[in-house]
Amino acid sequence: MRLLLLNPNMSQEMTARMEAVARAAAWPGVEISALTATRGFPYISSRAEAQIAGGVVLEMIADHVGQTDAVIIAAFGDPGLHAARELFDLPVVGLAEASLLTASMVGERFGVVTFTARMRAWYADAVRDAGLSGRFAGVRCPQSEPGGPVHAVADEHAELIRELCVQAAQEDGADAVILGGAPLTGLARRLDPASPVTLIDPVVAAVGLAEALARAAPQGARSGRFARPPAKSSAGLHPPLADWIARRG
Amino acid sequence: MRLLLLNPNMSQEMTARMEAVARAAAWPGVEISALTATRGFPYISSRAEAQIAGGVVLEMIADHVGQTDAVIIAAFGDPGLHAARELFDLPVVGLAEASLLTASMVGERFGVVTFTARMRAWYADAVRDAGLSGRFAGVRCPQSEPGGPVHAVADEHAELIRELCVQAAQEDGADAVILGGAPLTGLARRLDPASPVTLIDPVVAAVGLAEALARAAPQGARSGRFARPPAKSSAGLHPPLADWIARRG
Amino acid sequence: MRLLLLNPNMSQEMTARMEAVARAAAWPGVEISALTATRGFPYISSRAEAQIAGGVVLEMIADHVGQTDAVIIAAFGDPGLHAARELFDLPVVGLAEASLLTASMVGERFGVVTFTARMRAWYADAVRDAGLSGRFAGVRCPQSEPGGPVHAVADEHAELIRELCVQAAQEDGADAVILGGAPLTGLARRLDPASPVTLIDPVVAAVGLAEALARAAPQGARSGRFARPPAKSSAGLHPPLADWIARRG
Amino acid sequence: MRLLLLNPNMSQEMTARMEAVARAAAWPGVEISALTATRGFPYISSRAEAQIAGGVVLEMIADHVGQTDAVIIAAFGDPGLHAARELFDLPVVGLAEASLLTASMVGERFGVVTFTARMRAWYADAVRDAGLSGRFAGVRCPQSEPGGPVHAVADEHAELIRELCVQAAQEDGADAVILGGAPLTGLARRLDPASPVTLIDPVVAAVGLAEALARAAPQGARSGRFARPPAKSSAGLHPPLADWIARRG
Amino acid sequence: MRLLLLNPNMSQEMTARMEAVARAAAWPGVEISALTATRGFPYISSRAEAQIAGGVVLEMIADHVGQTDAVIIAAFGDPGLHAARELFDLPVVGLAEASLLTASMVGERFGVVTFTARMRAWYADAVRDAGLSGRFAGVRCPQSEPGGPVHAVADEHAELIRELCVQAAQEDGADAVILGGAPLTGLARRLDPASPVTLIDPVVAAVGLAEALARAAPQGARSGRFARPPAKSSAGLHPPLADWIARRG
Amino acid sequence: MRLLLLNPNMSQEMTARMEAVARAAAWPGVEISALTATRGFPYISSRAEAQIAGGVVLEMIADHVGQTDAVIIAAFGDPGLHAARELFDLPVVGLAEASLLTASMVGERFGVVTFTARMRAWYADAVRDAGLSGRFAGVRCPQSEPGGPVHAVADEHAELIRELCVQAAQEDGADAVILGGAPLTGLARRLDPASPVTLIDPVVAAVGLAEALARAAPQGARSGRFARPPAKSSAGLHPPLADWIARRG
Repeated sequence: MRLLLLNPNMSQEMTARMEAVARAAAWPGVEISALTATRGFPYISSRAEAQIAGGVVLEMIADHVGQTDAVIIAAFGDPGLHAARELFDLPVVGLAEASLLTASMVGERFGVVTFTARMRAWYADAVRDAGLSGRFAGVRCPQSEPGGPVHAVADEHAELIRELCVQAAQEDGADAVILGGAPLTGLARRLDPASPVTLIDPVVAAVGLAEALARAAPQGARSGRFARPPAKSSAGLHPPLADWIARRG
Repeated sequence: MRLLLLNPNMSQEMTARMEAVARAAAWPGVEISALTATRGFPYISSRAEAQIAGGVVLEMIADHVGQTDAVIIAAFGDPGLHAARELFDLPVVGLAEASLLTASMVGERFGVVTFTARMRAWYADAVRDAGLSGRFAGVRCPQSEPGGPVHAVADEHAELIRELCVQAAQEDGADAVILGGAPLTGLARRLDPASPVTLIDPVVAAVGLAEALARAAPQGARSGRFARPPAKSSAGLHPPLADWIARRG
Repeated sequence: MRLLLLNPNMSQEMTARMEAVARAAAWPGVEISALTATRGFPYISSRAEAQIAGGVVLEMIADHVGQTDAVIIAAFGDPGLHAARELFDLPVVGLAEASLLTASMVGERFGVVTFTARMRAWYADAVRDAGLSGRFAGVRCPQSEPGGPVHAVADEHAELIRELCVQAAQEDGADAVILGGAPLTGLARRLDPASPVTLIDPVVAAVGLAEALARAAPQGARSGRFARPPAKSSAGLHPPLADWIARRG
Repeated sequence: MRLLLLNPNMSQEMTARMEAVARAAAWPGVEISALTATRGFPYISSRAEAQIAGGVVLEMIADHVGQTDAVIIAAFGDPGLHAARELFDLPVVGLAEASLLTASMVGERFGVVTFTARMRAWYADAVRDAGLSGRFAGVRCPQSEPGGPVHAVADEHAELIRELCVQAAQEDGADAVILGGAPLTGLARRLDPASPVTLIDPVVAAVGLAEALARAAPQGARSGRFARPPAKSSAGLHPPLADWIARRG
Repeated sequence: MRLLLLNPNMSQEMTARMEAVARAAAWPGVEISALTATRGFPYISSRAEAQIAGGVVLEMIADHVGQTDAVIIAAFGDPGLHAARELFDLPVVGLAEASLLTASMVGERFGVVTFTARMRAWYADAVRDAGLSGRFAGVRCPQSEPGGPVHAVADEHAELIRELCVQAAQEDGADAVILGGAPLTGLARRLDPASPVTLIDPVVAAVGLAEALARAAPQGARSGRFARPPAKSSAGLHPPLADWIARRG
Repeated sequence: MRLLLLNPNMSQEMTARMEAVARAAAWPGVEISALTATRGFPYISSRAEAQIAGGVVLEMIADHVGQTDAVIIAAFGDPGLHAARELFDLPVVGLAEASLLTASMVGERFGVVTFTARMRAWYADAVRDAGLSGRFAGVRCPQSEPGGPVHAVADEHAELIRELCVQAAQEDGADAVILGGAPLTGLARRLDPASPVTLIDPVVAAVGLAEALARAAPQGARSGRFARPPAKSSAGLHPPLADWIARRG
């Protein structure tokens, strides 16, 4: 089985971090290819940026269609997830949705801990899109932005994150906590032994669900609200995406 | 007051039709500028297309920022609506949301009638994004696609549309019916005298709410979940949009 | 266009204050007539009082039917709103509902700030009746009743109100705040430049939506759950209302 | 224990029918006093009429305050129920709410069968006010209005009603069916032995819950959203109601 | 009328306490039989324990079928309630559901006060099963477990419980408060005169609703989702329960 | 990795069928042990039976604790799922929940097709327990019970099942359809190539999610609402279960 881990943020460091966690989590024999966006933003943190990044995700999948058995959109917030499911004939999984579905098997309510307040609205949208708002205990983040580069936040602020997880459990009523945001991947495994609350790593969750979905529904979403739209012409789009939409070549 | 009516579909005929209805509905003294997308699709009809068109909407607003008091996103489905509200410092109104809010003042439940089944999922998303799914009586459309060009559907299939409105009222329990989709604009006024159910024209609704919002909240959405994101660099974006996001110039 | 601003509270001072704000907000050429209840309570502040005041609203509209293009029920809480829509053949708008719909275009969640805790339950009912409870961030009010006459509260306690708006944003998660209660009208405009959160003035919102609705649905609600009931006899009612209900004269 | 059964419809026949059912259902020793409105409508069937009748209910209770241990508002739709709970210091029960709560102990979903389509919107409001919309299977009524006087509908159209109950169960998924509307009282007992679905008589349900509530909460609703409003002056109200509200005498 | 009060906890003290309260609350002439479980747990306080206790409840009812007119499952949390309704041909009432339905007639939102945090999840499940989560203000309990035997908690910690009730009202927004958990029965009556918020005793509520239900629906739940399953063989079950399920004897 | 597939129905044929599908779906190297209940019912089909079977599930897990990395409760309806998660320190997956979570990645709405109407209420409970009722398109089943033994229904009635799947998509609006009920396992794979709608096999979904969960949360649910209850004595329970609950041995 081949999985395409597609990072819509233009950050090689984040991609490398997520790729390492994905490889460690995947079953033996699963091939993981990791890609970094070459268009868009260094790090998506608003819904306006996610609107644009969702289009970039479609371009990236169009570039690699036929070369993978499933796609992981590797930004918490899942830009372009529903659009990708509608457009392409293979399973597509997002970090946020995969984490939420996994968390829902170990808790009735789950929270998200992240390192910046900027993502609150975007993450809440992801929960709503997954249909799980009724079980959402909210987002916990530091009161002020932690210093240092974004890709190093897991290394430099692990203790702060751990405390936020405890607060999510004790004050927000979360039964399980998701460490949201690509830069935090890998931290759940390190913190979990000492944590009083179950922690979910989005990359581990996404790899597990991508592997599961590739067996349970190998063609991906394909009917009803996710039926593939008819061929359509377009103007000004990334050529491989335009070709795919027009069903050319 | 200046209103920018921005058609994300690449169809001059639709723009002209909506512009005429908007001018007739606007208060004397309100200037309406109508724009047609030059990138994207002839007619958006899926959520994948809306993902891309939402980015095009942001580009179009960035091209005209400072030249208008409010923006109307003139495609039922409101591509890019929340992103535009987050990014720009002026009121932004969408055809779907404006129709739903208007309908909610003349009915407890409202339906949408349109001319093709393709838009169902996209329209349902718009209702959910407006927070009004609990009052939604569903989408009614013809069992088979009507013939002829899309922009002429209101002229050639008026009777079919009228019958669907009656079905929406009698079978779906709609107290009011929205004629969804840019090509149907203008039809509500023609059908309404003979209609047993209140009909809402999205362009009329959007003009009214844009005028109202420009007085009640002239700076647009600006706080909480809609606080403008900090300046950010990007790569590969439409230059005026990249400049706006980076707060350059 | 003629708008009837109908104050169900028996307070000339409040009516005068609302009339001034309404005139300033209305488009040139819109005539505003303001009326004060002559029966009922000096200031409605409970649901029992609203039950009675809703009947008074119907009497006031029956007295002026045929003399206006739309009615604004000028008490936050909207007494008699649904009954009036069912009974009369013209658009009817309420301060609460109009504010909520307007706020929903500049925020996903909105709070209400008012000057007394007495109105909490009544305002929450209004939010529910507008179908928007899922987006409601609650009511904020002073911990103790502010002194002085009710109609002067906006002048004497502006700073207190401003602080409550900030709390509604920061503690309750409101993206926009409505200044609820007729006595606060006019205050949003004064406070807004210094406010970190969007403020909505109910009278400005209601004038805007009444103007919009009078164009989009000039006959008002008229079908489905709002179909006008058949003629009916009655006993002991205000004669013009009894006549209207009986379809006499 | 004394129960006041208060019919807000000006129909002695209906009052007599309900009084007989109430007496048969009540525990030995419970005194039932039945009252008929002398102001309002012969038969309430719209929400506008219920707005007015709700005020009449308050007047009727004010006339008899101190003479009863609990009040039953004997019109399905419960006009004035929340207002009465707020204003008076004793348990108040409504036919609709009492039926819904009773039905919720014998089914997860319940429907309402009545004899005219006119009451649909009003009954749905009552379900929503009881907080039980999520379990509501809707209203079933004849396709055309049955002939004959309203108070005789149970006698003349029993078979039609029985068929509607079966439809509510089989087509709407109701586990239990409430025979809504004062004129149908007494019919459940007659139809039940032959009915495949549990039938609930609103008067029987209301008597049972009034007796239960008078023991479990003899002071009625009295705190939180139902705290009694402070004394207030008024103009133009039924004098005993004005006195009660002003806490005079 | 005969009522069977069935305590699924293996505690004679609790049974005695509940029986006394039930007798005081019941109408003259109603016979109350109280039973204590002989299998299961001393005091159920988790959902795993409730899963098992629900089966014990079915065994206890099977042992006494035909000897009572209605059953009260006398553990707050209502183990086996829906299963019992499905299986037996008589009204079945649970302490939690009965309290919630009663509270909903004196408040829009209600809280539960209990003496240990252990029951939170289980009680929340009971609220959800009653379909009333939207009106639930949550569970309040002491920050640390109170000392002394469980059955004496009402006597030894009355003041602590009273303070929690006030907090439920003032901080959680409860209009009425239920004293949850069998050991607290009897306390509401003692605390109520001094309480600013309406207090509900689950045993009083359950007796009232059992009496009401036995008149309004004497056969119990019997149709739709509660239709009795067809006869079925089984292995390893309590023989009277196996016989009942197999419709033997 | 070792997975325990635990069939709470006393049917060796069903266990064998599910075991074969599970082995085919599992990753190489995953050991599957399949167990059949020796107490309870031949085939669970009501909520009363599920109440009892949920206790049997706990007994079966207690018998094998320490011998597996995760448990699959192999009856659609998931008897005892929440109780097992609370009680045991390992991941527990249910056929219904696993199917629903998997379906939610390929559709917004999903239906369940099964072979008998008896399971409707139980399956709807499972959807509610998974928190996904808002996306549920309902249960489709044959109008009359199909003949032949239950374990052979997939072989003898495949065409009927296929037609029901199409109806679920076209009439109920399901984007994906779950073939519910242990006897249908294996059928999705056979029908899928010809199906216009995505089909989900519960056993395949459960194996995939068990494998994923065993990596993402190897300790299972363990905090918040799923914290393991303190040690407790009991009477009359299956001894290994009593020992586990008492934390003996």
